[in-house]
Amino acid sequence: MTAKTFSGVLVPALTPFDSHLDPDTDALLTHCRWLLDQGADGLAVFGTTSEANSLSLEERMSLLEHLLENGIPADKLMPGTGMCALSETVRLTRHAVEHGCRGVLMLPPFYYKAINDDGLFASYAEVIERVGNAALGVYLYHIPPVAQVGLSLGLIGRLLSAYPDTVVGLKDSSGDWENTSAVLREYPSLATFCGSEVFLLETMRNGGAGSITATGNINAAQIRKLYCDWQKEDAEALQAQITTTRRTYETYATIPALKAVAADFYATPDWRVVRPPLLSLGAGEQQTLVAALADVGFEMGA
Amino acid sequence: MTAKTFSGVLVPALTPFDSHLDPDTDALLTHCRWLLDQGADGLAVFGTTSEANSLSLEERMSLLEHLLENGIPADKLMPGTGMCALSETVRLTRHAVEHGCRGVLMLPPFYYKAINDDGLFASYAEVIERVGNAALGVYLYHIPPVAQVGLSLGLIGRLLSAYPDTVVGLKDSSGDWENTSAVLREYPSLATFCGSEVFLLETMRNGGAGSITATGNINAAQIRKLYCDWQKEDAEALQAQITTTRRTYETYATIPALKAVAADFYATPDWRVVRPPLLSLGAGEQQTLVAALADVGFEMGA
Repeated sequence: MTAKTFSGVLVPALTPFDSHLDPDTDALLTHCRWLLDQGADGLAVFGTTSEANSLSLEERMSLLEHLLENGIPADKLMPGTGMCALSETVRLTRHAVEHGCRGVLMLPPFYYKAINDDGLFASYAEVIERVGNAALGVYLYHIPPVAQVGLSLGLIGRLLSAYPDTVVGLKDSSGDWENTSAVLREYPSLATFCGSEVFLLETMRNGGAGSITATGNINAAQIRKLYCDWQKEDAEALQAQITTTRRTYETYATIPALKAVAADFYATPDWRVVRPPLLSLGAGEQQTLVAALADVGFEMGA
Repeated sequence: MTAKTFSGVLVPALTPFDSHLDPDTDALLTHCRWLLDQGADGLAVFGTTSEANSLSLEERMSLLEHLLENGIPADKLMPGTGMCALSETVRLTRHAVEHGCRGVLMLPPFYYKAINDDGLFASYAEVIERVGNAALGVYLYHIPPVAQVGLSLGLIGRLLSAYPDTVVGLKDSSGDWENTSAVLREYPSLATFCGSEVFLLETMRNGGAGSITATGNINAAQIRKLYCDWQKEDAEALQAQITTTRRTYETYATIPALKAVAADFYATPDWRVVRPPLLSLGAGEQQTLVAALADVGFEMGA
């Protein structure tokens, strides 16, 4: 555990847009404040769920600065900084660490495929050495269903050996518990987060650090309750309940669904807006989804 | 055929780097001039082979300006402008068209997966409408082996119907002749290029516009000879010869292999440098590859 180490429930905050598809900076700030009020242990802003890969470099930097200038604490922030281009990953990572962010969540470069571990090691190594800042804390981001380029156990080990004071954690969004379990077993010093709260109880039982999960945008308090109470006797029931909530909204595409639930909660139809290539849910779908969630006992913010 | 229409052999020019991994602007200019001297009908700069997705937005724009300022004609240029982020694709596309480029080669946004045609249609439509310039000529870029996100026949048809004066061509790098053949059959008005010269003769026999191919970096003259002579009796023999050249260097990863051949040709070891996550060939591999190409009768520039 170092000053860079996060634990608990972190939320890849959704990025609200206005009707012109521009980021709504104030709605983002409001949402981040609400998430921290709900007990979120950190904000993994500019993650996959944040549509970060649909934002320009400048948009990301300017949104991060807006959050910091308006009182979101830097030690709660773990912005995503992994881009396809080495020069951009370096720039974003340096920006985050120079603004005091406690960590960064770093995708591997994801355009070129059939990349081997030597190439991915070189990518992370170049970024870490070019940023050259002892305050940098890197959380490796393994999300092969989306990025396609994943991080093997061997690569994780090599990065950990080479940069033990910098590579401090990992988010496993493989959706494959066998992989998360192997990371936890092989690298107990790494702060390992499951990428879906469906695996939270198993993650905690196996020495994990918590979960960085999309669902935190609407259900952070309940997920955090499981994080705190995982050794109590109602843990299985809590796990079942939060899993049911996720399975219910997952009948839609994740990001549009979460934004529709937020649109209902904030009573702001524009909250449903996503950038292409994603497609927004309509008002009717929003109603149906909120009703389906109510049927399984879930209401955002309740 | 409009002023936006290309035909022939276009080359996704390799981007040379120096030993610090910075783009070598003068080496790029020299290479582009040489390609045009070899008869290349256009330069698809900042394509996949150009490691464009390992370059920042600013690096791409500044390299394009350097080429134009040094006499590379805008009507020979088809820069790649498709990024993950809508705001960046708009910015790069606008930059290219305002600098007079005859066309742009546009990847779909490629981070998010399981995207449907409505989402991809919205992506292209937003870019075209936001750029809002009648001079814009879009070449759709279908490269599912790398981008993973591909362009269906139905989507191509919808874009062509909605923007008949803007969507003027397509590069098919699927590696699947059945797909190229279907595009040629369904959309004869589109300038369709095969993404590998292996399919050039078949492409020409089926009404295609030519090839936009990585191999053009080392073998543009010979590929262009087939483009010109496809109806002559030695066409099959020419096709066999250029296919053999490609199969020979393809025993290595494409981009590092082409850069190694260029390093030999320009007698500049730094030409071998690639940005991570790609890995450069070593001097020994360069020698072996150049010798293997000589064995099949190929020498760059000969």
